[in-house]
Amino acid sequence: MAAAAILSGLLTEILIPAAAVVGIAFALVQWLLVSKVKLSPEDSASSKDGVSDYLIEEEEGLNDHNVVVKCAEIQSAISEGATSFLFTEYQYVGIFMVAFAVLIFLFLGSVEGFSTKAQPCTYSKDKYCKPALANAGFSTISFLLGATTSLVSGFLGMKIATYANARTTLEARKGVGKAFITAFRSGAVMGFLLAANGLLVLYIAINLFKLYYGDDWEGLFESITGYGLGGSSMALFGRVGGGIYTKAADVGADLVGKVERNIPEDDPRNPAVIADNVGDNVGDIAGMGSDLFGSYAESSSAALVVASISSFGVNHDFTAMCYPLLISSMGIIVCLITTLFATDFFEIKAVEEIEPALKWQLIISTALMTVGIAIISWIALPSTFTIFSFGDQKQVKNWELFFCVAIGLWAGLVIGFVTEYYTSNAYSPVQDVADSCRTGAATNVIFGLALGYKSVIIPIFAIAISIFVSFSLAAMYGIAVAALGMLSTIATGLAIDAYGPISDNAGGIAEMAGMSHRIRERTDALDAAGNTTAAIGKGFAIGSAALVSLALFGAFVSRAAISTVDVLTPKVFIGLIVGAMLPYWFSAMTMKSVGSAALKMVEEVRRQFNTIPGLMDGSTRPDYATCVKISTDASIKEMIPPGALVLLTPLIVGTFFGVETLSGVLAGSLVSGVQIAISASNTGGAWDNAKKYIEAGASEHARSLGPKGSDPHKAAVIGDTIGDPLKDTSGPSLNILIKLMAVESLVFAPFFATHGGLLFKIF
Amino acid sequence: MAAAAILSGLLTEILIPAAAVVGIAFALVQWLLVSKVKLSPEDSASSKDGVSDYLIEEEEGLNDHNVVVKCAEIQSAISEGATSFLFTEYQYVGIFMVAFAVLIFLFLGSVEGFSTKAQPCTYSKDKYCKPALANAGFSTISFLLGATTSLVSGFLGMKIATYANARTTLEARKGVGKAFITAFRSGAVMGFLLAANGLLVLYIAINLFKLYYGDDWEGLFESITGYGLGGSSMALFGRVGGGIYTKAADVGADLVGKVERNIPEDDPRNPAVIADNVGDNVGDIAGMGSDLFGSYAESSSAALVVASISSFGVNHDFTAMCYPLLISSMGIIVCLITTLFATDFFEIKAVEEIEPALKWQLIISTALMTVGIAIISWIALPSTFTIFSFGDQKQVKNWELFFCVAIGLWAGLVIGFVTEYYTSNAYSPVQDVADSCRTGAATNVIFGLALGYKSVIIPIFAIAISIFVSFSLAAMYGIAVAALGMLSTIATGLAIDAYGPISDNAGGIAEMAGMSHRIRERTDALDAAGNTTAAIGKGFAIGSAALVSLALFGAFVSRAAISTVDVLTPKVFIGLIVGAMLPYWFSAMTMKSVGSAALKMVEEVRRQFNTIPGLMDGSTRPDYATCVKISTDASIKEMIPPGALVLLTPLIVGTFFGVETLSGVLAGSLVSGVQIAISASNTGGAWDNAKKYIEAGASEHARSLGPKGSDPHKAAVIGDTIGDPLKDTSGPSLNILIKLMAVESLVFAPFFATHGGLLFKIF
Repeated sequence: MAAAAILSGLLTEILIPAAAVVGIAFALVQWLLVSKVKLSPEDSASSKDGVSDYLIEEEEGLNDHNVVVKCAEIQSAISEGATSFLFTEYQYVGIFMVAFAVLIFLFLGSVEGFSTKAQPCTYSKDKYCKPALANAGFSTISFLLGATTSLVSGFLGMKIATYANARTTLEARKGVGKAFITAFRSGAVMGFLLAANGLLVLYIAINLFKLYYGDDWEGLFESITGYGLGGSSMALFGRVGGGIYTKAADVGADLVGKVERNIPEDDPRNPAVIADNVGDNVGDIAGMGSDLFGSYAESSSAALVVASISSFGVNHDFTAMCYPLLISSMGIIVCLITTLFATDFFEIKAVEEIEPALKWQLIISTALMTVGIAIISWIALPSTFTIFSFGDQKQVKNWELFFCVAIGLWAGLVIGFVTEYYTSNAYSPVQDVADSCRTGAATNVIFGLALGYKSVIIPIFAIAISIFVSFSLAAMYGIAVAALGMLSTIATGLAIDAYGPISDNAGGIAEMAGMSHRIRERTDALDAAGNTTAAIGKGFAIGSAALVSLALFGAFVSRAAISTVDVLTPKVFIGLIVGAMLPYWFSAMTMKSVGSAALKMVEEVRRQFNTIPGLMDGSTRPDYATCVKISTDASIKEMIPPGALVLLTPLIVGTFFGVETLSGVLAGSLVSGVQIAISASNTGGAWDNAKKYIEAGASEHARSLGPKGSDPHKAAVIGDTIGDPLKDTSGPSLNILIKLMAVESLVFAPFFATHGGLLFKIF
Repeated sequence: MAAAAILSGLLTEILIPAAAVVGIAFALVQWLLVSKVKLSPEDSASSKDGVSDYLIEEEEGLNDHNVVVKCAEIQSAISEGATSFLFTEYQYVGIFMVAFAVLIFLFLGSVEGFSTKAQPCTYSKDKYCKPALANAGFSTISFLLGATTSLVSGFLGMKIATYANARTTLEARKGVGKAFITAFRSGAVMGFLLAANGLLVLYIAINLFKLYYGDDWEGLFESITGYGLGGSSMALFGRVGGGIYTKAADVGADLVGKVERNIPEDDPRNPAVIADNVGDNVGDIAGMGSDLFGSYAESSSAALVVASISSFGVNHDFTAMCYPLLISSMGIIVCLITTLFATDFFEIKAVEEIEPALKWQLIISTALMTVGIAIISWIALPSTFTIFSFGDQKQVKNWELFFCVAIGLWAGLVIGFVTEYYTSNAYSPVQDVADSCRTGAATNVIFGLALGYKSVIIPIFAIAISIFVSFSLAAMYGIAVAALGMLSTIATGLAIDAYGPISDNAGGIAEMAGMSHRIRERTDALDAAGNTTAAIGKGFAIGSAALVSLALFGAFVSRAAISTVDVLTPKVFIGLIVGAMLPYWFSAMTMKSVGSAALKMVEEVRRQFNTIPGLMDGSTRPDYATCVKISTDASIKEMIPPGALVLLTPLIVGTFFGVETLSGVLAGSLVSGVQIAISASNTGGAWDNAKKYIEAGASEHARSLGPKGSDPHKAAVIGDTIGDPLKDTSGPSLNILIKLMAVESLVFAPFFATHGGLLFKIF
């Protein structure tokens, strides 16, 4: 046995919650700073601060009280719409949550026939562990905890975003720098709240569960995996429901507004405009928040469950057990420092500085975090320990584990930059796509699809290398901590990611409030950078999902007591090929849902334009509520079939075909889903920015394709519209598909191992 | 040891070549019948047959000598273009062939250091086999044989198609039935020539190689796998080169002609029209011919190599060894009878009868072949035998093997029907896509992509079930014969497949020769059915490719002496995820190539319209040759990178990373490639037929979307154009990607097993 870690158990017990509390406090401070932008006209124009601000050259329209009132109105309309949708969604999801909780309890309880007697442990056969019934109960509780935390995370994110968007618009009057800081701070509120909450709830749950489990860490951490399942299943509904909502509204609004009626995006005359803006908040914000929280919860669970059956768990080394949580704690501190670089140490003065500032956030957080990981690995781990690896115990050194976490972290950065290269209109790929609009929409689509396919190459190599290194060094535990490494800077990642939809909404509000062209240009510049950061965020989400799923898959295989997953057995191979098909099935459902919902939206918008007199000249207000209702109904109805596909597949396959086939399904859906997810979101991002490239007309080349309304621009709008469901519905939902099936399999593994494979048992 | 087979070795030796000769004779008879349609005006109008034909009501324009002359001219222009392109292609491909042959010889020769001494056998360790150097030499020879047969197959197919297309046009004057028979007979010529040639060459090669190898069947059939490699590597260049050629021309012609200039498809004023028609023959005909020949050669090779190390080979049971060849022989006879149903037993009288007639071809051939397989399995196999299964010998009964072949055959039929359902405009999926054109190109594309994704589900289940059953019953040999079962009706499959492009060209010729609207309508009806059969053909090609690749993969694993391919080892998993990425990389290359070549074509066509006076009013002929040159240059240049990707990947991975990683790559590319291939070709087919649905206006619904030139029709044309590279370049090339990497790995397996995995050996 090697020497124990430097960090004592007591200190660990203090440091983790302390970091979480610091994170929450920081988020509140940021909120406070955002709230200083007043939405009531008196304060904003006549305060003393306002007077001193007059000196800045860029200011514009600060005295227009009407504009402020209008912005406040629009913001509250968006906020109400989003709140009402989320409540409706949560009602349905709540029913599911209860039903699924019962299912978990029944399935897991049945493993030992609901016996309350202690059982021999699964791995340490000589010891006695708590009964399966207790694990069933605690798994159910942690599922509910994870689900609730996920819902709260999404909801809080939405609240903050809708609180911030009109404030960003108002700040844009003072200049692009002020607007950027408001949008970014709001993103940071969400990022830090999520990261800190996720950590805190997990930490408290572990400590409470320990009161019952005592020395039975196997059972304790097996139950904790329910936390990941809860987080991810809520994320699925958030992403799919929110994704359908936002894109039905967006596509519907664009098809009639931009294409048929030739009115600008976000024009208040468009009846679907409020639904569109609500959609950004429920899809891109609440959905993304739930998604990344799910990834975080799952990678922590995967790491903990493997650790519990390794030397950390066997020797009851609490500090080392908490290594994943310590990494996350360090992440919060690192991200806190990183945020200051964007908000306090430097100041954005011009439009061109926005993208670099966001990119520097990624670089700084990664560089600092590398040091952070080194410190944690040095103080929290024994110099040598053993890790459970499919039946064996593999010897690992602390610096090897450092490499695992660091490679995940850096792979995330590589994926981020590659995504940026393929989706930002500053580089040739998007410019080529824009150029292909000369010959019409068809070539635009062909080039866009090709770009998406191509953008898969480097991220996959980055993921493959991370997997190879971390797998070779520390088996599944290595993969799990590599995923955690990629997610360790989640607070910064979420901040720059949430920044995108906030800016998008700010632009929408500026347009609707009838603010000047110059302000709209500023918010557009924020938004263009936001498109790229959104794509980067999706890249992170997908990359981490791939690693997380593999870690969960590995944990599942261990728990299900299979020693190998041999492709060359019929049971595994059919799983593999069917698994690789699932992302296609899932995408077919979600894309068709968006398409059908958009058709309904188009009909309603057309109806309003045709039947409401005075709508086009702006003298009558359109009926926003009907459009909101169409999006709501469509998304609630349409999220059920894809949700059922993802949630039922592991249950059906595991119960009827057994764990080998299920392993194949997990591996197949993982390797195939990652590719579609990356290519779909990059294709969509590229089309969106190709359109923005033509609209902005910043270069000779771009101007030759424009202006707005030219044939190439029309072709670009078609590409943008096609990209909407790809990048905001199908693509990002696929992460959840692969993660969720893996974590569900892991949670139900005891049941499958005991009662699974019915079909083969019968025949 | 069970009783020997009923069929004697001598009879086997006679039956196989006899069936091949019958197939060739039948093809020649069909050719003779097609050639009765005269392309010289004197004969066709003044012959006595012509006079009696006058009685048929449908006849039209039989006396117009000019039309006949014009058709003959156009046909020879197309034929010359195609011949010249194929010769250019073959020059480049010839260089590759020689270089690769040298590579094979050097790699395989180096296995035992170019020693000429006999070596212990790989599987029967107690016996001595021929030296590795001999295997290297014979593998090289069979590679060259396969490559040459593939080129000849493609070339012959092209010659027949270009011989038949104007004849189909002329027959269309007499009615749709006559035209159908001409097109179908020509397809049959190609189908039977290919199937019979492939069988005959393989049979002769085996018998000649046996003169040297004698009792060393291990070495003999290992060398024969080169035949599959040769066939598939030529198919790759044929598919990719031909695919880029045809779609660059097609997309280019459509974008300027249909969209900008509002002239009909195949209008002789369009400078790219000849290139477009040439493309159909080099891409869809020659490429498809090479492709299916490759599948046939590979599945036979895979079955033979496994059989040689099973009881058939060990006991030197020649009849049972030849089981795969006997299945193919029976297939030729069954297809011959099936063909008569379309050409002689029944007659097509109306447009609506075309699709059912083609569908019945599939059903009849499948039903008859089931009986045929039963007969062969009964007379050629011992009642019980053992099959090599990853180190073990698995006992199999003859009726079990019957099931393996039959399930492959029927899975092919299921795939065919599902493909028809998703791509024919007689059913709701395509009609829904057409309907989505109401709201523009964007919804059309979204619905089309969703349709393609959805169309993957049932074929994958069909493939998965075939794999499970045949794998469980007879291990890899079961998979190989299931693939052969699917391909056993290849002659009929190719006939109905080649029928499509022939009809397409016939329509083009009618348009260019200025024939009446009524004749164009008849050829259009043939063509619409052809689009669906082309999609069915692609479905077969993909389904069989999946089975073939798996069989080859299994053979590779055995030969490389790996006992399991465990997904949960880092070496295999990174292979799996990178392998799943390759189809995306490959598609990115081919789609971008088509896009870029199409842009060049568009510029040239625009240039001609703008600079050649009198082009639009038809008084001046366009410069067809320049467009042909653009397509030729683009396809030759652009086929190299994707070709290199496919051919170098197994070599690089095997040499540097070793056989485990290579296994992962093969499994990954197989399970991911199948999905993209199916969805790409069905999406493209659906868009094409959605457009035709609107154009034909056969129902109330269709008329509400039309007529030609309406907004929904324009949206449909955009979809059709996007689908072109998906269905005719990327999609069908992906079959070859997965097959070729597998067969290449198998051929090089002895080298990889000895010298592979350099990187891991060094570190």
